[in-house]
Amino acid sequence: MAAQKPSIPKGTRDFGPIEMVRRNYIFNTVQKVFKKYGYLPLETPAMENLSTLLGKYGEEGDKLLFRVLNSGNFLSKVPDEKSLQNAPSLVNLITEKGLKYDLTVPFARYVVQHRNDITFPFKRYQIQPVWRADRPQKGRYREFFQCDVDVIGSKSLLSEVELIQITDEVFSILGINVKIKINNRKVLAGVAEMMGQADQMMKITIAIDKIDKIGIEKVNEELISSGIPPDAVDKLQPVLTFSGLRNEKLVLLRGLLSDSEIGMQGVCELEMVFDYLSGFDLKSEVEIDLSLARGLNYYTGAILEVEALDVNIGSICGGGRYDDLTGIFGLKDVSGVGISFGADRIYDVMLQSDLFPLDLAQTTRLMFVNFGKEEERFCLDVLAKVRNAGISAEIYPDHVKMKKQMSYANNKNVEFVAMVGENEMAEGKISLKNMESGEQEKLSVKELIAKLSVE
Amino acid sequence: MAAQKPSIPKGTRDFGPIEMVRRNYIFNTVQKVFKKYGYLPLETPAMENLSTLLGKYGEEGDKLLFRVLNSGNFLSKVPDEKSLQNAPSLVNLITEKGLKYDLTVPFARYVVQHRNDITFPFKRYQIQPVWRADRPQKGRYREFFQCDVDVIGSKSLLSEVELIQITDEVFSILGINVKIKINNRKVLAGVAEMMGQADQMMKITIAIDKIDKIGIEKVNEELISSGIPPDAVDKLQPVLTFSGLRNEKLVLLRGLLSDSEIGMQGVCELEMVFDYLSGFDLKSEVEIDLSLARGLNYYTGAILEVEALDVNIGSICGGGRYDDLTGIFGLKDVSGVGISFGADRIYDVMLQSDLFPLDLAQTTRLMFVNFGKEEERFCLDVLAKVRNAGISAEIYPDHVKMKKQMSYANNKNVEFVAMVGENEMAEGKISLKNMESGEQEKLSVKELIAKLSVE
Repeated sequence: MAAQKPSIPKGTRDFGPIEMVRRNYIFNTVQKVFKKYGYLPLETPAMENLSTLLGKYGEEGDKLLFRVLNSGNFLSKVPDEKSLQNAPSLVNLITEKGLKYDLTVPFARYVVQHRNDITFPFKRYQIQPVWRADRPQKGRYREFFQCDVDVIGSKSLLSEVELIQITDEVFSILGINVKIKINNRKVLAGVAEMMGQADQMMKITIAIDKIDKIGIEKVNEELISSGIPPDAVDKLQPVLTFSGLRNEKLVLLRGLLSDSEIGMQGVCELEMVFDYLSGFDLKSEVEIDLSLARGLNYYTGAILEVEALDVNIGSICGGGRYDDLTGIFGLKDVSGVGISFGADRIYDVMLQSDLFPLDLAQTTRLMFVNFGKEEERFCLDVLAKVRNAGISAEIYPDHVKMKKQMSYANNKNVEFVAMVGENEMAEGKISLKNMESGEQEKLSVKELIAKLSVE
Repeated sequence: MAAQKPSIPKGTRDFGPIEMVRRNYIFNTVQKVFKKYGYLPLETPAMENLSTLLGKYGEEGDKLLFRVLNSGNFLSKVPDEKSLQNAPSLVNLITEKGLKYDLTVPFARYVVQHRNDITFPFKRYQIQPVWRADRPQKGRYREFFQCDVDVIGSKSLLSEVELIQITDEVFSILGINVKIKINNRKVLAGVAEMMGQADQMMKITIAIDKIDKIGIEKVNEELISSGIPPDAVDKLQPVLTFSGLRNEKLVLLRGLLSDSEIGMQGVCELEMVFDYLSGFDLKSEVEIDLSLARGLNYYTGAILEVEALDVNIGSICGGGRYDDLTGIFGLKDVSGVGISFGADRIYDVMLQSDLFPLDLAQTTRLMFVNFGKEEERFCLDVLAKVRNAGISAEIYPDHVKMKKQMSYANNKNVEFVAMVGENEMAEGKISLKNMESGEQEKLSVKELIAKLSVE
């Protein structure tokens, strides 16, 4: 076989030991918090049937699905030349599965498929890769990891509150300063209703979202040229200049939306969430942001998004309430609320802000230098005892030059190196070198284990 | 959108909370042992370029690869009708990536690609799913999980020894009784050489492997009818009746293979491994098994396999030494040795033998019953304190019938339920019910946290 220059598909990544240890630190942190709040783990397959995935992410999303070829002689199912002219149907003949695009739709599929075995409300978390055939660019990958946490089967706002607590706790443990932004789809519907433009909610929300970029005047122009009557646009002005403290915002909304039933529902929900939150000692600021709509169309109540304050990277976590996600799979009226932590962006933020604990880099704590057969035997015996004490340790497998062995220990960030020569064997002791300080001492096996167990 | 009956691709599985907790117990156990022996984590993408995968698993393996369709308008690359008659080339036009088939080939690819950043010997572990388009059947899945642990860049037999220690330790922690079987490709080559049939090694090994099923006589008949001369088959007889204690086997092999250089090398390697092992206190029996060849062609030295003794399920772990795995990617003379734990079969063995710890099923330790708004507020405050103490706890999110809430706690295997009504609120106390014993007591918040922290 000819040698080939190895590479991986664009937009995918290898995670070497250093990346892995750091990523696991993030995954373990979120997982620990999820568990503390009573969430249960779930994993679904990498592949889903295309019938499960198609039509759930809009036309653009369908195009970004990675499709898996049917195995076996799939081309025998292609009838004739005509099929080539009709690409979509050819595609359907040769592929029935796709890689999952997010964790939410497979979760909805799982809930419906296993509804008789699940005790509702079902609190689950899911940490898995997802795949999108997006154009790869800095910070955007074709294989990336999501950490989702959802409650399904309850309309209680306590779930929204709990998710905000979880978010606050995760980022506070990780050391990332964040702002948690909250909005409510019902408030957005109320704003559109108040303008007499109930069916233009999306258009209006998108316009609100553009204020920071293009300014109020341009937003108004856009709305008018898109067919919203000028008097309706006038009514929107208080929302466009929306600012002030959280309570002032709520008072303003109460006044503006007093004639819209759905709008007032949204305001009440926001108020209740803040009322609950006032009982807790959150580290992060939680702020109402009416421009928050997020791409996904299925949110029906709260909309949540988390922004890192010290690194300009966009949203690092987001989600909301969806009243009928399982409806597409035939299970009606199951309300859920969830958020998704973007592990890759969180990783980037932590790396840029130098937030990973230093001792993560340390993996093996003790390495025995290999001085040859006889010393090896002595060391292997000590090594077994050290490992039995639960200490991560190894012996260099070959008797090669000291320099090479020490450079291995150095590169691997080993904390201590043990050296056993003739003298040490005669005394039954181990010379231990602290690789950071350079300090050296002679210890008995018992002392060695005690030292490594304490540190 | 019409409702659809949801399902998942055949051969794939959802892992619900109970399965997840059990699987994580297995993954955490192996990972902890791997780390203790100084192995570092690695993960590679789900998709690899087909050029990396094709030709590495034999013709049969190539057919079992799941291929991923190129994204975008891939069919525009299909030139004309003729392509349809030439299926393989059409396939190559529309697909360039595949799901990984095992962890070994992507590991070799990783090592070659990152050779300048890696400190050798490189000790790594990798726990990830792999995909094979095999016909699904009991215990065989199209998506399944491997836990691989390898040392690459050293020829030291200490690595073989270490892997046997790891295997012994993992299964001893999991409580699975196993037999570790070892063979050596050089011994098999020596046997063929001793027969004067050096180029028939595979055929002879396969024949040896059949003794248990068809008996010695039939094996001899097969060998002769396949073209091995009768006098050569005569020479094989001592191997076919191979039995006795480990040392007797080694003595026999030493005598038989004394004229074969490669055979004697193999015997020496086996002896050295056993010599090292004699210094350790292994729980499992390690036995020479000359019929052990394993499907993969790349083993060059030790061959290892682990068999569960109490459940008839085949091999649950296996591997060996490969002297030139990275050669296919252009990096010569890098010797490695590794083993792979089959997580799914280990799971099945543990389930059948009832080996999972009982407390795995317990996730949330304390649930507060929801008696309405006022009680909720009191409980939320206590709940925050309990969680701050690191105890997994939750409150039922809705004020519904007590029976429904208790059945939720029951189904979720919650250990304690907290009930706070008017009386408790007046006293500032919590009524705590042990869900297993039914015992009930009234505790202050401090007492509650103390109780849950101790248990």
